[in-house]
Amino acid sequence: MALNVVIMAAGKGTRMRSARPKVLHTLAGQSLLQHVLQRAAALQPQRTLVITGHEAEQVERHVSATAPEVRCVRQQPQLGTGHAVLQASPALDASAGTTLILNGDVPLIEPATAQALATACGGERLALLTVTLDDPTGYGRIVRSADGTQVQAIVEHKDASEAQRAIREVYTGMMAAPTAALQRWVAALKNDNAQQEYYLTDIVAMAVAEGVPVVAASAADETEVLGVNSPAQLADLERRLQRRQAQALLEAGVRLADPARFDQRGTLACGQDVEIDVNCLFEGTVSLGDGVRVGANCVIRNATIAAGAVIHPFTHIDGDKDGVTVGEGALIGPFARLRPGAVLGREVHIGNFVEVKNSTLANGAKANHLAYLGDATVGERVNYGAGSITANYDGANKHRTVIGADVHVGSNCVLIAPVTLGEGGTIGGGSTISKDTPPGQLTVARARQVSLGGWTRPKKAPKP
Amino acid sequence: MALNVVIMAAGKGTRMRSARPKVLHTLAGQSLLQHVLQRAAALQPQRTLVITGHEAEQVERHVSATAPEVRCVRQQPQLGTGHAVLQASPALDASAGTTLILNGDVPLIEPATAQALATACGGERLALLTVTLDDPTGYGRIVRSADGTQVQAIVEHKDASEAQRAIREVYTGMMAAPTAALQRWVAALKNDNAQQEYYLTDIVAMAVAEGVPVVAASAADETEVLGVNSPAQLADLERRLQRRQAQALLEAGVRLADPARFDQRGTLACGQDVEIDVNCLFEGTVSLGDGVRVGANCVIRNATIAAGAVIHPFTHIDGDKDGVTVGEGALIGPFARLRPGAVLGREVHIGNFVEVKNSTLANGAKANHLAYLGDATVGERVNYGAGSITANYDGANKHRTVIGADVHVGSNCVLIAPVTLGEGGTIGGGSTISKDTPPGQLTVARARQVSLGGWTRPKKAPKP
Amino acid sequence: MALNVVIMAAGKGTRMRSARPKVLHTLAGQSLLQHVLQRAAALQPQRTLVITGHEAEQVERHVSATAPEVRCVRQQPQLGTGHAVLQASPALDASAGTTLILNGDVPLIEPATAQALATACGGERLALLTVTLDDPTGYGRIVRSADGTQVQAIVEHKDASEAQRAIREVYTGMMAAPTAALQRWVAALKNDNAQQEYYLTDIVAMAVAEGVPVVAASAADETEVLGVNSPAQLADLERRLQRRQAQALLEAGVRLADPARFDQRGTLACGQDVEIDVNCLFEGTVSLGDGVRVGANCVIRNATIAAGAVIHPFTHIDGDKDGVTVGEGALIGPFARLRPGAVLGREVHIGNFVEVKNSTLANGAKANHLAYLGDATVGERVNYGAGSITANYDGANKHRTVIGADVHVGSNCVLIAPVTLGEGGTIGGGSTISKDTPPGQLTVARARQVSLGGWTRPKKAPKP
Repeated sequence: MALNVVIMAAGKGTRMRSARPKVLHTLAGQSLLQHVLQRAAALQPQRTLVITGHEAEQVERHVSATAPEVRCVRQQPQLGTGHAVLQASPALDASAGTTLILNGDVPLIEPATAQALATACGGERLALLTVTLDDPTGYGRIVRSADGTQVQAIVEHKDASEAQRAIREVYTGMMAAPTAALQRWVAALKNDNAQQEYYLTDIVAMAVAEGVPVVAASAADETEVLGVNSPAQLADLERRLQRRQAQALLEAGVRLADPARFDQRGTLACGQDVEIDVNCLFEGTVSLGDGVRVGANCVIRNATIAAGAVIHPFTHIDGDKDGVTVGEGALIGPFARLRPGAVLGREVHIGNFVEVKNSTLANGAKANHLAYLGDATVGERVNYGAGSITANYDGANKHRTVIGADVHVGSNCVLIAPVTLGEGGTIGGGSTISKDTPPGQLTVARARQVSLGGWTRPKKAPKP
Repeated sequence: MALNVVIMAAGKGTRMRSARPKVLHTLAGQSLLQHVLQRAAALQPQRTLVITGHEAEQVERHVSATAPEVRCVRQQPQLGTGHAVLQASPALDASAGTTLILNGDVPLIEPATAQALATACGGERLALLTVTLDDPTGYGRIVRSADGTQVQAIVEHKDASEAQRAIREVYTGMMAAPTAALQRWVAALKNDNAQQEYYLTDIVAMAVAEGVPVVAASAADETEVLGVNSPAQLADLERRLQRRQAQALLEAGVRLADPARFDQRGTLACGQDVEIDVNCLFEGTVSLGDGVRVGANCVIRNATIAAGAVIHPFTHIDGDKDGVTVGEGALIGPFARLRPGAVLGREVHIGNFVEVKNSTLANGAKANHLAYLGDATVGERVNYGAGSITANYDGANKHRTVIGADVHVGSNCVLIAPVTLGEGGTIGGGSTISKDTPPGQLTVARARQVSLGGWTRPKKAPKP
Repeated sequence: MALNVVIMAAGKGTRMRSARPKVLHTLAGQSLLQHVLQRAAALQPQRTLVITGHEAEQVERHVSATAPEVRCVRQQPQLGTGHAVLQASPALDASAGTTLILNGDVPLIEPATAQALATACGGERLALLTVTLDDPTGYGRIVRSADGTQVQAIVEHKDASEAQRAIREVYTGMMAAPTAALQRWVAALKNDNAQQEYYLTDIVAMAVAEGVPVVAASAADETEVLGVNSPAQLADLERRLQRRQAQALLEAGVRLADPARFDQRGTLACGQDVEIDVNCLFEGTVSLGDGVRVGANCVIRNATIAAGAVIHPFTHIDGDKDGVTVGEGALIGPFARLRPGAVLGREVHIGNFVEVKNSTLANGAKANHLAYLGDATVGERVNYGAGSITANYDGANKHRTVIGADVHVGSNCVLIAPVTLGEGGTIGGGSTISKDTPPGQLTVARARQVSLGGWTRPKKAPKP
């Protein structure tokens, strides 16, 4: 079905108490508006329009950055929902007979529900998205015809009779309308009400008056029609979405130690027999191979973890733009940090208080304790000693350290880049290496050890 | 209204199974008794008395340390609630017509509720604080007069008729009484009951007998009248309080990723657009400026974080008595630890596995990896290398390290304090610096690098 | 009562979507089957049989490793529950008059309930374990005789009449039967049903037909009869068990900051006045002495922590097979890691970013910052400097470092094992120590500090 989608995103969101426009607040790592745009895109509309208003430029920049094919229409000043759609009216694609109106602050609308709403319209009827609530207090009630097939009116809570208040089916703020009729109706709206606003819902009466059928499509689940008006509502929706994501992973066979202490902000692909312990957080695009185990309290972003790898507790992996790759059977952590460009081969071990950035570690390489590897190429089976540091930054430029296969770097060494350690060499503990080292040999840079007999220890100074 | 406040704090709290007196157990970081004392102080009473008994000395020390204006009265032995008030009777300020009786183990009583209770007394009536429970089983029921305005009796659950058991309004243990009458009544109490205790509630019958009106003031919320008798109840109240605090922050515009995984034990002041990720813990007095972002799993105590600073996950900040200050736009963590006296300027970066104690870092200084800065004064734009350490302790005394502006300290250096590094100098990686260094120059303390051709690696010893 | 126990463990558990057999999935750190075996063992049966089938060898290896006295009986192919018991029939101990049938995927059955079920059988009756559910939809209903004392039938949900569907008492899958009768009955089962399976429940009709009394024993609590069929059910049962364990600790006087953020996978013994902050995880066998405080986000496995020790946040202790011992009044963390064989004396301090493995630290020893102690024996009051490392591994073998009492090791030292530091000696900061050091003396291995005036700093290279 040829479709226009109009997304309302002009509101200020005063109750957010934020300098940021409401629709740019994030849910599970992406903006409310992005959620709606992605779900709208799933319907493959002819045209999508976002109505901006409050902080319009900021919202428009966000739209053009994340959904460049979408057009923005500015509503200035903001005189109500009907006025908003009126601004979009000239930009609607007339060849698309149905126009679907979504809200930029209702992020979890299911594409299937939006599609059902559009189908209910079918270019001929005014279709309202409704939901049935246990407690409908405050919401506009859906008054249906005697046979239940048609909607006669949306009655606001304050205007509702006792009988109408008993109705639990309410309007969600989303609708689909025949495009041409919608254009005619919004042009005819009046603002003769207390707020002097143009209400989109007033078109229901127009449709009824014209004999255009008004029908309802129902959302099965309250969560998908919940709007965000305050940080409390945002937090509530975040937890609902997280629970739902956790449930989906459980159904796919992932073992979560506590579904209530699990956060996924983006995409998490899991192989078979993946285990995720309590309080882990995944961001961006993360992939966990078969049998991967992630310990408690890990934070993992933009990373690919191969089958059989074990991520111990308190590990922080952040691939940012360059990604992080962890090889099969690798052991990472606890207290490890992998930064962008860390590429770890099979059975690499990265232990406690070790940081790896923009470095490649070949199969079987180990850095188990208190170490820094930055801008390094590390060969197979290298043992990188406790406390050792690649001095990759000379205060102005970054340089590479190349460590050949089977090199043993002792403890507390400094490798001053650019430097190459030849294959199979050994670097004595405590050495500062500023020149390339030959393969197979022991290289040290170490002062002679002397003991001073006459020396006495400092004594505690008397308190002044 | 002139007011005495009497706080019952003599009980043992057997079910706490603790060596600590019950009222000294902590809720959100302060003792139950402190909560009550602070809430009582909000009423500006003439006099506040705490009745101590079990582990009286420990409780009295706590009172004099945290609320020195408050007097303690000892109840020894403990013969019931009426006997407790009898001990306080001589110490009441006769010029204060109303005496309010609170419980040291009911910590969340709202000052407005306590005030309403005192007002209901008004120096003339016996006022009981009541609450309506869904399930009143076990509690003393409030039997009101036919017109509902007066209380006729408190009937214990075991003594209640079927009709009385249907009453859901119960007594909370808190009351307000005309001071002189209270003194007369508690002196007249009898202990002719199974437990041979003097019950304060027996004064209700005395008041009724004397024709003194007995009235009820009602707590709106069950939480504020909940007492703590066991660790389970303490944990339950802790979570209720934490949820409430989280809700208050959300309403103020703070974004909490998960209100159920948030702990505030003390005061948390937040600017606009503050974001706090999951599982963070705030203690003491913490202030977060506009736009501060706190990552997952941070612990922050007694610290001031300026606008725009980003605290990455797994950061531990503890200002203890000296405080910690983080400047605007600073980046801290992950895995950073800031200790008392850390004062960080604008855009300071403190990275992973870095500890800062009693040190000042000027604007733009950086210590990004595996480092210790203790008792140091660090100039602007200093780059403090990975693995470098201020050796501030000679085994007896602490000394200062002064690092001039624009100094670059290489990796794995040791700066043996007291020592001063001149402005703009560079310290070569792996150097141990025991003497002051000149500005602008490169200073190194480094052994010559040699390679040994004939050397062979150790071989794996055969298992014995 | 002489008893056989038969545990059904042949199922595939397709919904687990796992390569692992269902009964080997872990709940609170041990397999479902281990839970059942331990609970069965509490009844001191004559004989326990586990019926294996899917991935039988893997299950049998697990049984022989964890409960070597238990026999496994293989069911191949798997033709239903009755067929399963038929395979076990020849292996039943005929001298044990009662045979109890448990499920390997129902891990939390209380021994008292299983005992009551066996007693209900008493070698004479067929006893069914039942439970009353709020929503019995889908379960087999227990149809009792008019006087309620006897069970007449188990009616499957799909076969139940309206009246029968109103019954909320359902069959749990567990039963106890007279051994000889059970053997006769299972041999007589037919598979003339849609699934062509042999159903154990068909023996109810046989018992009724024979006039053998069929009785019910009821589980008081739904949790103990819940089975695990999917990761979601496993996660749900995990949280139920964790809540229950938390509740038991609270009742014993342990203070948990948040019972919903607490995990115990194994045995946790706590003294008086133990405090455990949010999000802690205990595994294996852990003992916490009187007054121990465990900070937020700690992970502790197989360790003994003595009275008065304080474990700061973000501490990872894993004793694995060798255990970890922490002495009285010790201070550990934050960000500390104690590994197997760490044995810490009284008032030892282990600070941030410090790793201790297979090392003994005598009373009062301190390693406060960024350090590694592996295979070391550390004397009393030793101060082990920031950044110092025991180089215990020469690339082939591990060697010991011995540090005498009162030694001060400076910062960023490397101690190349095997090496002994004499009592009361001082090691200068930045020294690499490869030979034993004399007691009482200052030992250094340090290059001369020189400054180079003509040197200029590297400049930022132009972008290519």
